[in-house]
Amino acid sequence: MKTVFLLHQEELPRSWYNVLSDLGRPLDPPLDPQTGAPISPDALAVLFPRACLEQEVATDRFIPIPEPVQEAYRRWRPTPLARAVRLERALGTPARIYFKYEGGSPTGSHKANTALAQAYYNRAEGTRRLTTETGAGQWGSALAFACATFGLRCTVYMVRSSYEGKPYRRTLIRLFGAEIHPSPSDRTAAGRAVLARDPDSPGSLGIAISEAIEDARRGDGTKYALGSVLNHVLLHQTVIGLEAIRQMEVAGDWPDVVVGCVGGGSNFAGLALPFFGEARAGRRLLPRLLAVEPTACPSLTRGEYRYDYGDTARTTPLLKMHTLGADFVPPPLHAGGLRYHGMAPIVSRLVADGVVEPVAYDQGDVFRSAALFAQTEGIVPAPETAHAVHAAVELARRCAAEDEAKVILIGFSGHGHFDMAAYEAALAGSFPRGS
Amino acid sequence: MKTVFLLHQEELPRSWYNVLSDLGRPLDPPLDPQTGAPISPDALAVLFPRACLEQEVATDRFIPIPEPVQEAYRRWRPTPLARAVRLERALGTPARIYFKYEGGSPTGSHKANTALAQAYYNRAEGTRRLTTETGAGQWGSALAFACATFGLRCTVYMVRSSYEGKPYRRTLIRLFGAEIHPSPSDRTAAGRAVLARDPDSPGSLGIAISEAIEDARRGDGTKYALGSVLNHVLLHQTVIGLEAIRQMEVAGDWPDVVVGCVGGGSNFAGLALPFFGEARAGRRLLPRLLAVEPTACPSLTRGEYRYDYGDTARTTPLLKMHTLGADFVPPPLHAGGLRYHGMAPIVSRLVADGVVEPVAYDQGDVFRSAALFAQTEGIVPAPETAHAVHAAVELARRCAAEDEAKVILIGFSGHGHFDMAAYEAALAGSFPRGS
Repeated sequence: MKTVFLLHQEELPRSWYNVLSDLGRPLDPPLDPQTGAPISPDALAVLFPRACLEQEVATDRFIPIPEPVQEAYRRWRPTPLARAVRLERALGTPARIYFKYEGGSPTGSHKANTALAQAYYNRAEGTRRLTTETGAGQWGSALAFACATFGLRCTVYMVRSSYEGKPYRRTLIRLFGAEIHPSPSDRTAAGRAVLARDPDSPGSLGIAISEAIEDARRGDGTKYALGSVLNHVLLHQTVIGLEAIRQMEVAGDWPDVVVGCVGGGSNFAGLALPFFGEARAGRRLLPRLLAVEPTACPSLTRGEYRYDYGDTARTTPLLKMHTLGADFVPPPLHAGGLRYHGMAPIVSRLVADGVVEPVAYDQGDVFRSAALFAQTEGIVPAPETAHAVHAAVELARRCAAEDEAKVILIGFSGHGHFDMAAYEAALAGSFPRGS
Repeated sequence: MKTVFLLHQEELPRSWYNVLSDLGRPLDPPLDPQTGAPISPDALAVLFPRACLEQEVATDRFIPIPEPVQEAYRRWRPTPLARAVRLERALGTPARIYFKYEGGSPTGSHKANTALAQAYYNRAEGTRRLTTETGAGQWGSALAFACATFGLRCTVYMVRSSYEGKPYRRTLIRLFGAEIHPSPSDRTAAGRAVLARDPDSPGSLGIAISEAIEDARRGDGTKYALGSVLNHVLLHQTVIGLEAIRQMEVAGDWPDVVVGCVGGGSNFAGLALPFFGEARAGRRLLPRLLAVEPTACPSLTRGEYRYDYGDTARTTPLLKMHTLGADFVPPPLHAGGLRYHGMAPIVSRLVADGVVEPVAYDQGDVFRSAALFAQTEGIVPAPETAHAVHAAVELARRCAAEDEAKVILIGFSGHGHFDMAAYEAALAGSFPRGS
C-alpha cells in the first residue's frame, strides 16, 4: 500500500492562495490606536516592506510566488503527505489519518515558508536588517536562516522562558548568524518597563513583539518581521494547503476533517484556507476545519472577539481578533509557539462565521498522544504540533467507537528534535492528566 | 535549475547490493579466538539470526529486501539527493557538490536502514529482545525505533560520555520504549571489570559491545544487534548507494569523488559500495572513494591491518581489519559515532587493496565547515557527517584553486539536531584549530 505521496519539484505551486478574495465581506480593518480610524498602509511602511503591505489588503485570488522564493522553497518543498497507517492500527480505528509534514524544512517547521518570502521582499526593497520576536524559537531560527539566505542581518528577541529552557534553538539561531537577546531585555524601553515591574518575568510573545518593533523603529535600514497573525504571513503559508490538495487527489482521498494547532494561526491557516477556497470555488466539499489550542492559552475558546493590540506595550495597530487581552501572560508551556494572547484576524473571522471550529486540550493529554505518534510513526512531533496530533487521535478514537471511516488530515507543523526536555518530563510522568 | 532529485516510492530498490560477490578473492574469515580456526556460523547463532549470518558469507550479487522491511523503508525512502548550490557559491568553486541526505529517517540518520532489517529478521526467527551498544545514540535510537516497529523489546548500553553529554538522544531511545544503561555499567562482568580499574571511565564502543554481548548470551529469546562493521550491516546500507546511482543518472551527472565519514564503516560503505559495483560491472568509471575519520580515532590512517577483537573484553571473534587495538579508548569527541577502535573488514580490505582512500581531519576544522554548510544549505550536519562535509569542502576549495569542475558526492549520514551543544562549543570558539 502506498503511504507517502510526493510531488516533484516542478509541481511546487507558483502562487499563494489569497483567502481575502473569498471572505464575502471584507475583514474589519486595523485601526490606528491614536485616532481609532482605519490605519493607512503608509503608517506601517516604517515596519514592513511595501510588497507585504499590499498583500495585507490584496483581493486577487492568487498571488505569484517570486522566482527566488520558489528556488529557496525547492530545497525541501513540495513537502510529503503521508498516511499514518501504523498509528491507525495502534488505535484500531477505521479512520484514515494523513499528515502533511512540514518538519523537513531547514529549521524543522512551516515557519520557513513565510520567513523566506519576507526576507526576500525586504532585501528587494533595500532593507539591511530585520528584527523579530520568537517564542519556542521556531520562528526565530526560520527568520535567521532566511536572512542568511538573502543576505540580511537579523536580531531576534526570544521569550526568556524559552531562551533559558530551549538552549538548542538559541544555538541554531546563532549558527545561522543572527544576534539573539532574551526578552524582556534592557535594550528597549518596552523591555525595561516590564523588568521594572517584574525582574523575573518569563516574558511573552506580546512583550518580545514590543521590543522587536521598538528596535526596528530606530530605522537605519531596519524593518520588522512577524511570524504569524498578519494576512500576508498566512498567505505565504498557503503553499502547504495547495500542495496538500494535489496530494490528497493523488491519494484518491479527501479529508472530512482538517486539523491544525493554533498559536497565531499561520500554520493552521496555511493548510486549511486552500481547502476553504476549493469549497468556495464549488469544486469540493468543505471539510470540518478544526483549530486546536492549549487550555493554558485559550484565545479562541475563551477569548473575546474584539479589537485589541498585538503586543504588550500597545504599540501595534488594533486588530479585530480573538484575544485574552494584550497584557495576558500565559504560564510557561512546552508549546512555546502557542503562547500568544491573540489570533490571526482571518482565523478569528472564520471562527466567528462558524467556518472554523476551535477546541482546547491539556498539555498532559497532548504529550501522551504525541508519544504514541512517535512510537508508531517514528516522528517526534513538536509540542505545538502535538496538539493537532492529539485532536486527530481523539477523532480517530471516536471513529473506532462509532465504526466510522472518516478521513483526517493533520497539519504536522514541525518536529520536536529541540524539545526532548519536554518529552523527558512527559516520560518522567510530570504531566499529570489535566496539567 | 533543478537542485533536488527525488525518486518515487515505487523506485525504492528491491534488493541490496552484496559486494562480497565482487571482491575477487574472499575476505579473510573471522577466527575463533580459542582455536584460531575460522569460526562456524553455528557458533554465532546464539547472537545473530540465521538470515544475517547467511548474509555475512553470501555470494549472490543482489539479496532481496523483505517486503515488510521495504514497507518500513517507504516511510522516508527513497531519500533525496540534492545539489549544494549555495555551498558551491560560497566557496566560489567550479565543483558540483551533491549530497545524499539520510537525515530524514525516523531517527535522523542512516542507521535505521539496518536496524529495521535486523529487527525484522530477529522477529521472524522468534527473538523477543535485542541488546545493543550505542555511541552518540544514533544507532541506539534507530534500533529502539526498529524494535518498536516489529514488536521486540530492546536494551541499549550507551557509552557513558555520550549518555551524559547527549541527554536528548537518550530521551529519544526511551521514548521509543527501550531500556537504556550507561556503559560501563554494573550489570555485566565486563562493565564491572572496567569500573574496578577506572570508576570514572568515559566508556567506549568496545566496552559497550562487550556488555551488550554478555547480556545477550544470557539467552531467554535475546539476541544481539550491531550497528556497523559486519558484512550484513554494510549490505543493508547499500540501499543508499543504489538510490544515489539512479539519482545521479537523473541529475545527468556522475561523481568523480564519493566522500563519507567512517566510524565502523557502514554509512560510507552503504553509499560507496554500489558505485564500486557499477564499475566492476563495467558500466561506469570508478569514482575516488574517500573515507574520512577523525584524527582523534584514526583507525584507517594510523591503525594496523591485522586480526583483532571487536570489543574490549575480547569476547568477539577475531576480525581482519584496521585497528588501533581492542583496548584503545579514544578521547571524548563530539562525533561519538566515530569513536571505534576498529573498522569494517570490507572497508579495511578495500583500503588495503587501494580502492578506498582514507583521510583524517581535526574536529575544529570539521566544525567550521559544518557551520558553513548549515549557513548555506540550511541543514545542520551531525558531527560525524561533518567530517565528510569538511573533506568535500577541502576538495571543492582545491577545485577552485585549480579551476577544475569535479563532481563530489557527500554521504550525508545524519542531521545534528541532537548535537547543538557541540555547535554551541564551536561557536564559543572552544575548538582551536588543530583540536
